[in-house]
Amino acid sequence: MVNVAILGFGVVGSGVAEVLAKNGPHIDKKVNNLIRLKYILDVRDFPDSPFADKFVKDFSVIEQDPEVHIVVETIGGARAARDFTERALRAGKSVVTSNKELVAAHGYDLLQLAEANGVSYLFEASVGGGIPIIRPMNQCLAANEITTISGILNGTTNYILTRMIKAGLSFDAALKEAQANGYAEQDPTADVEGHDACRKICILSSLAFGRHVYPDQVPTEGITGVTLADVAYADSCGKKIKLLGRSMLRPDGRVCAYVAPHLVDGENPLSGVEDVFNAITVQGDAIGDVMFYGRGAGKLPTASAVVADVIDAAKHMKSRKYLGWGPGGPEVTQSPDGLESAWYVRAEGTPDQAREILGAGSFLGRAGAPEGEVAFLTPSMTRAALDAALAAGGLRPLSAFRVLD
Amino acid sequence: MVNVAILGFGVVGSGVAEVLAKNGPHIDKKVNNLIRLKYILDVRDFPDSPFADKFVKDFSVIEQDPEVHIVVETIGGARAARDFTERALRAGKSVVTSNKELVAAHGYDLLQLAEANGVSYLFEASVGGGIPIIRPMNQCLAANEITTISGILNGTTNYILTRMIKAGLSFDAALKEAQANGYAEQDPTADVEGHDACRKICILSSLAFGRHVYPDQVPTEGITGVTLADVAYADSCGKKIKLLGRSMLRPDGRVCAYVAPHLVDGENPLSGVEDVFNAITVQGDAIGDVMFYGRGAGKLPTASAVVADVIDAAKHMKSRKYLGWGPGGPEVTQSPDGLESAWYVRAEGTPDQAREILGAGSFLGRAGAPEGEVAFLTPSMTRAALDAALAAGGLRPLSAFRVLD
Repeated sequence: MVNVAILGFGVVGSGVAEVLAKNGPHIDKKVNNLIRLKYILDVRDFPDSPFADKFVKDFSVIEQDPEVHIVVETIGGARAARDFTERALRAGKSVVTSNKELVAAHGYDLLQLAEANGVSYLFEASVGGGIPIIRPMNQCLAANEITTISGILNGTTNYILTRMIKAGLSFDAALKEAQANGYAEQDPTADVEGHDACRKICILSSLAFGRHVYPDQVPTEGITGVTLADVAYADSCGKKIKLLGRSMLRPDGRVCAYVAPHLVDGENPLSGVEDVFNAITVQGDAIGDVMFYGRGAGKLPTASAVVADVIDAAKHMKSRKYLGWGPGGPEVTQSPDGLESAWYVRAEGTPDQAREILGAGSFLGRAGAPEGEVAFLTPSMTRAALDAALAAGGLRPLSAFRVLD
Repeated sequence: MVNVAILGFGVVGSGVAEVLAKNGPHIDKKVNNLIRLKYILDVRDFPDSPFADKFVKDFSVIEQDPEVHIVVETIGGARAARDFTERALRAGKSVVTSNKELVAAHGYDLLQLAEANGVSYLFEASVGGGIPIIRPMNQCLAANEITTISGILNGTTNYILTRMIKAGLSFDAALKEAQANGYAEQDPTADVEGHDACRKICILSSLAFGRHVYPDQVPTEGITGVTLADVAYADSCGKKIKLLGRSMLRPDGRVCAYVAPHLVDGENPLSGVEDVFNAITVQGDAIGDVMFYGRGAGKLPTASAVVADVIDAAKHMKSRKYLGWGPGGPEVTQSPDGLESAWYVRAEGTPDQAREILGAGSFLGRAGAPEGEVAFLTPSMTRAALDAALAAGGLRPLSAFRVLD
């Protein structure tokens, strides 16, 4: 018998309880053992829940119960969640989480603590919701040296961009619609400003490249600056605007990670990822491009990723599951400032002013463009070179997004 | 130290040697042990190979060497490969393979034999080349009851269909081009008749639904009957023709698996999978749709999947890796005859003859359609109902493909 405690009975936590209950016999067979939910920690009361008899309000009940083997942390945030995670690991319990904020901020320390206590700290659900990505990256791609990760990592922003592209809604209107449909929070900052995608690319980078990459090392730009004019220009050259988290192993061995809107060509499978779906492309030296696609959020998809980790932890009760990376540090990363790429630019100015910096690039057009607006794709250059060229040409940039190779 | 022997120095086998050599330090770190290639079995001589000192011609050298822990079988076929696999497992060595024919035909027996000998039999590379699919299905989706699998499982046929769709080549011309590019064998039967896709959907079905599904239980139709007329009609309604292997858990608990060309809607991510790429969609009760995408074949992608299994076997030298399913039998499967779907039909006849069976369906048109050709999409019905309706209407079918939901 393997006993599980869930911390936090919110969307994901209640989904975990539901999946454990619904697919119990199937799961027991997979583990070759009985997995049982013993406690749910929440400050609120749920007298009508089918799990009403399992609720406790004091974490130390769970901490001190030697029968609890696996703690599922679905509280979110990096305060109580961190405290309870540390205490659970110290008490010799494996911890499974969907908490990307905590893993991105303190993953290295928590993985070290898990190792020191001979237990597992697993977080498949922290990236890509229900999409299996952490485990395949760690195991299936183990034979590869991973070179690049590019992902649509946030369902809310992808929904908003999809509605801008397909229904012609403005950013504000699309955001309102997303909120009405429950795809965006009332305070959408973490999503639309790219912070959520930033946390996820931190986790993927740490796993792929072996050193902790912290959110403050990852320049992050959200989608609030994307306009319908940009969507139209992108469409005119067969591309779509997508918010991507990207991470690359650079020739000097450092990691270059950032989050920003990109123009993605229609031929690239990432361009077809719509609505709240997520997709992550991983490039390895042997395997080439591999893509993982699915629902990046939602109660049951995320819960199923959590439960997969619970199953894995239960199967590895004696030989803990190795998953981890080395410590972070300023020397681990480099800024994307030095990264060359083609750019999409929309600016105030004239075609003549743009011609000089355009080089081998090309002008773009759209219906209803106002007088004095010019848009174009540049040759490959750094951001600094782009800014210098725009200034030299006397162009005032309104939008500037990288074009994905 | 973990010693590996490779059986068969063909495309995949030599790729495995190359990946082990190239990414050696990276791999050793993953395993926390040293993985070393000790033997390569091949009847041919390779005096100029960098691995020349490792070749042996007699399998019993490998079989009787207690230092060999893992045997990589990349011979293909179900004869010598089967014999060597059985002998290796009996000798207490884990076996890793890319051989879909062997797994589809004898997977259950070989998995039983592995279990009896306390070793692993792993076959990530047998489906989807380098795409991680076997392990995610077994582990990451363990919390789900899988309901449907739909996959573009064969790169050769997908290349041919892509060239028909995008370049307007006939089937014969596209096949010749595929052969010239090394994407199709000189005898392309196994690919174009769907046998290769059939073996792969057998393996995925067995893994997902827990009982061995044999190739002769899976009705299989290839792409030799797909014409440019069909491609044009599909295009006229925003769909693409794709060869799919499908497998579904039916309400009576039986598995319905088959391989056939389908019309796939442009909104479905499978429709955007082009050239030699593969993609597999898995539907689970909690997770919804998840898709795995990548190169379905090729030396290094396939080799990297094999090496990932080698790493996994090396990490589980003491506690063998559980992967398996129950025995097959006629009661495991049911025919797709009872499966209702919309159909695309191209027939000799007139719209008037078609109108009766069309019901809520719709007519299709194409430029240059000859007199007396009619094409349409039907409402949902079984194949028998379709055939009866066509006969009743006096229509002679030229093509009839299911439309993917």
